[in-house]
Amino acid sequence: MASRPDGSTPRNSTPSARHASARPADPHWHTAITRIQPNTIQIRGYAVDELMGRLSFAEAIYLILRGELPTPSIGKLFEAVLVSSLDHGVTPPSTLAARNVATTGAPIRESVAAGVLGFGAFHGGDIESCMRFLQSGLSRISEGRSCHDVAREMADGCLQQGRIPSGFGHRIHTFDPRAARLLQLAQELELDGGHVRLIRAIERVLQQRPDADERPIPLNVDGAIAAVCGDLGFDPNLANPLFIIARVPGLITHAYEERERFQPMRQIDPKDHVYDGPLSRRLPETRK
Amino acid sequence: MASRPDGSTPRNSTPSARHASARPADPHWHTAITRIQPNTIQIRGYAVDELMGRLSFAEAIYLILRGELPTPSIGKLFEAVLVSSLDHGVTPPSTLAARNVATTGAPIRESVAAGVLGFGAFHGGDIESCMRFLQSGLSRISEGRSCHDVAREMADGCLQQGRIPSGFGHRIHTFDPRAARLLQLAQELELDGGHVRLIRAIERVLQQRPDADERPIPLNVDGAIAAVCGDLGFDPNLANPLFIIARVPGLITHAYEERERFQPMRQIDPKDHVYDGPLSRRLPETRK
Amino acid sequence: MASRPDGSTPRNSTPSARHASARPADPHWHTAITRIQPNTIQIRGYAVDELMGRLSFAEAIYLILRGELPTPSIGKLFEAVLVSSLDHGVTPPSTLAARNVATTGAPIRESVAAGVLGFGAFHGGDIESCMRFLQSGLSRISEGRSCHDVAREMADGCLQQGRIPSGFGHRIHTFDPRAARLLQLAQELELDGGHVRLIRAIERVLQQRPDADERPIPLNVDGAIAAVCGDLGFDPNLANPLFIIARVPGLITHAYEERERFQPMRQIDPKDHVYDGPLSRRLPETRK
Amino acid sequence: MASRPDGSTPRNSTPSARHASARPADPHWHTAITRIQPNTIQIRGYAVDELMGRLSFAEAIYLILRGELPTPSIGKLFEAVLVSSLDHGVTPPSTLAARNVATTGAPIRESVAAGVLGFGAFHGGDIESCMRFLQSGLSRISEGRSCHDVAREMADGCLQQGRIPSGFGHRIHTFDPRAARLLQLAQELELDGGHVRLIRAIERVLQQRPDADERPIPLNVDGAIAAVCGDLGFDPNLANPLFIIARVPGLITHAYEERERFQPMRQIDPKDHVYDGPLSRRLPETRK
Repeated sequence: MASRPDGSTPRNSTPSARHASARPADPHWHTAITRIQPNTIQIRGYAVDELMGRLSFAEAIYLILRGELPTPSIGKLFEAVLVSSLDHGVTPPSTLAARNVATTGAPIRESVAAGVLGFGAFHGGDIESCMRFLQSGLSRISEGRSCHDVAREMADGCLQQGRIPSGFGHRIHTFDPRAARLLQLAQELELDGGHVRLIRAIERVLQQRPDADERPIPLNVDGAIAAVCGDLGFDPNLANPLFIIARVPGLITHAYEERERFQPMRQIDPKDHVYDGPLSRRLPETRK
Repeated sequence: MASRPDGSTPRNSTPSARHASARPADPHWHTAITRIQPNTIQIRGYAVDELMGRLSFAEAIYLILRGELPTPSIGKLFEAVLVSSLDHGVTPPSTLAARNVATTGAPIRESVAAGVLGFGAFHGGDIESCMRFLQSGLSRISEGRSCHDVAREMADGCLQQGRIPSGFGHRIHTFDPRAARLLQLAQELELDGGHVRLIRAIERVLQQRPDADERPIPLNVDGAIAAVCGDLGFDPNLANPLFIIARVPGLITHAYEERERFQPMRQIDPKDHVYDGPLSRRLPETRK
Repeated sequence: MASRPDGSTPRNSTPSARHASARPADPHWHTAITRIQPNTIQIRGYAVDELMGRLSFAEAIYLILRGELPTPSIGKLFEAVLVSSLDHGVTPPSTLAARNVATTGAPIRESVAAGVLGFGAFHGGDIESCMRFLQSGLSRISEGRSCHDVAREMADGCLQQGRIPSGFGHRIHTFDPRAARLLQLAQELELDGGHVRLIRAIERVLQQRPDADERPIPLNVDGAIAAVCGDLGFDPNLANPLFIIARVPGLITHAYEERERFQPMRQIDPKDHVYDGPLSRRLPETRK
Repeated sequence: MASRPDGSTPRNSTPSARHASARPADPHWHTAITRIQPNTIQIRGYAVDELMGRLSFAEAIYLILRGELPTPSIGKLFEAVLVSSLDHGVTPPSTLAARNVATTGAPIRESVAAGVLGFGAFHGGDIESCMRFLQSGLSRISEGRSCHDVAREMADGCLQQGRIPSGFGHRIHTFDPRAARLLQLAQELELDGGHVRLIRAIERVLQQRPDADERPIPLNVDGAIAAVCGDLGFDPNLANPLFIIARVPGLITHAYEERERFQPMRQIDPKDHVYDGPLSRRLPETRK
């Protein structure tokens, strides 16, 4: 017996589409990612074994996501995007979800899954919303408005509604060093375009607020990533996934530490932790 | 009211441990991964903004997992480890789990979570079992046995029980180009140690079987990663997590393609797909 | 060191809210679900051991979700809601996600997690959208319009846009016996209210279409659940969760069968399955 | 192009099995759970619409898991098993994982998935280990030993190794009212068999320890469920899944409360919560 999937008809399907499914469907479907043949694995047309040792992991990620190789400059900026979000300590709810799963004795992959589910709209979702926010501004600029005027409108529009503009503000940091470094790199690599110019303009508007010193609203790392990835042409639907790629190694390290250092079934209090890792240190000169 | 976690007493807890929990517990717990202070994020002691643009993503992953910077050679080999497992097409069950979740309209992070859960003992779990398999052989070598004798015992022991040695065999490939390339890189970078020597010795034993031509049992990519990561000193408990880090970008790309190219709620038949991406192509000369 | 969660400021947070977090927060938070004290577990005020043997599982689910005991009639109808969605065979994408995870050797709970993630907007999400659809109609009726007129408007509005009304249509069934039975039970138990009356009116409109015989658009089980649960006063935000509660036993049974009957790492083709379970049978007379 | 799943050869697969996959495989596979035909859904041979209103949800769960209807007595005991584990407040790590996901703005199903992943070996896994523990004792009894002697050996064997016997001990409760009630119901319904007799015998041994008053090691709910489900003939591999079925409604209620009562991205401290739900209350007389 061959049957077909359950589920009510999707809301946006049409009666004709529904009935069309009664026709014998084309049994073939198409994929443009990876081609597997005996003794050959090609990703976007390139043999994986040829990529190994020649592309960095970040460049290969760019290739599979976008379909084409990055230029060396884009590759370098994309590395920095991913490094910027590698970890943010034990207190993000995604990390707590991962640690709470780890303390029950589950394998690390279950901690990763639980942690990834914690990248909801309010955590990791801000890159996407900031990309869309910037796109709305760029469309106004493309109609002939000045970047400065649009930036002022965007900032004022939010503040007047009691909202902080997407991509700005942080609960802990009054200056987000990751955001500053990422925009600096984009400029050095000559990869800053309209998105970066617009977010810098919004940043200036916010810095010129009368109460900017007492109540800073700094550009945050999500905003900087949104601007840089916008200029690189990423689809906003890939923003949350980029954050996942960047943060999974952090989630894994927390789950691993939880399993190695603590008794199972402990109660994890996010407030009462103490850092006991290496003290502040600098990269060796050869790395600079 | 302050209460404490539910759950039956863990099997390996002692009565004294159980009663000890009645004492007021030390409210502090320790973490050695990331230190967060206002305007400062340090991973393993290094400021994230200093790492950005100076470490590659793979090097930063190595740093957070291991606690120390990789040497440039180790960094290069670790990039190749991660690139080797980036994707294997639409048919692995983890990829099918991710696509089946995507077709219901769920956000991409849910596809990632479902896909990661598909890295069970029989899929992605072979790196860990091969690392342990090699360790058992190395301990025999450390007792004075020759690498060749131990390799022969290990291979014969499996085959006599009707099992293929861990790290060998593949359902599709009779020669796994990723495995060959990874061991070649380890050798070129002078990072091949006891694990690589042992797995190469097992490979030779298997190649000398009388029926090796009709029924090849090739070294596979999991075996090569196990050998290389064993020589790099990775804990076998991090083997499955390394595979997760490598494959998450592939899962994301499949979930994204599923959402972009297909109607929701389609029935995904793993057999009837056709590749329609870029044809075979080579890296430009500048990349070689 | 005590620090606070990462994450960009939520989009709807205000500057004042953000700065308020600098004040020492009230360390207590409140929960109204379950009270744990030594040797006492109370759910919504009732001792669990008193509930055991006196409430059915479905009645206890109703209690914890809603905060109050159901009447016996409501309890009976709620049992039927949950039974109606227990399973729908191997082809729904949620079930395929669960089976693909099971075939990798993962524990059953990982299959459950993957399957639950497959209850996206297009699969299991229709109960919620139908509840909101019916609520929009009821608000028009409360303004003095007749149920019949509103039903006609709602049906015609969808069809003219080429959409099937939410809660109607099915890919396999031209008559959904679960929907009919559920509305019959609601009527017998005298629990049918405005939502049921409205969905029945929409059903009649759709049945009177000129092409209703060739192209039936039947009321489906999601629509019937939406109407019944709407009349029971359920929050539409609990619609998807009700479906999860009902379907988890089905997901578990599929994962268990996958592990017990099949070799690991098989390729699961949703089309080529054959049912070999018990033939059609009727409940014994004592059960009727 | 038709290809086949990735993945290293499973450890327990034989060379012949591996090569057998080169033969054209039987395209059909079998399932014995649910039969879907147009306008008919049969679970284990029974039409779902016939079950609705005639079987309780718990009885239908028993049917789909076991393949046959429960007797009325078994159905009643099974309801109590599921009610016993409905919830245990905010502090279990599974509940904290679910709440941490909910605070990020994710849909409730993602909280359910994360919570279910928290039912690892040390949390929810004790039912299975206790079932296997009891089975090992029953096999000794079947060889002619007395229940009392075996119970003493089992208890002493654990205590001498500094372990608490599986199914006993609780971090909060010195007497677990759920366990007592469940065994009482099994007795009243005349469903107590060898597993229940054995666990009661172990309980007596533990109560006769010299320090039983100062350091009670009570039978816990996991132990009682293990004994009861063992006597009902459940496969220990279904023990963790039974706990999942029972606890999912609790996880949902916590995720729902988290979303309804709290701001997103709050830091959830498991220690500082206060119960503000209904005060202690009793079931109405009609329910007793």
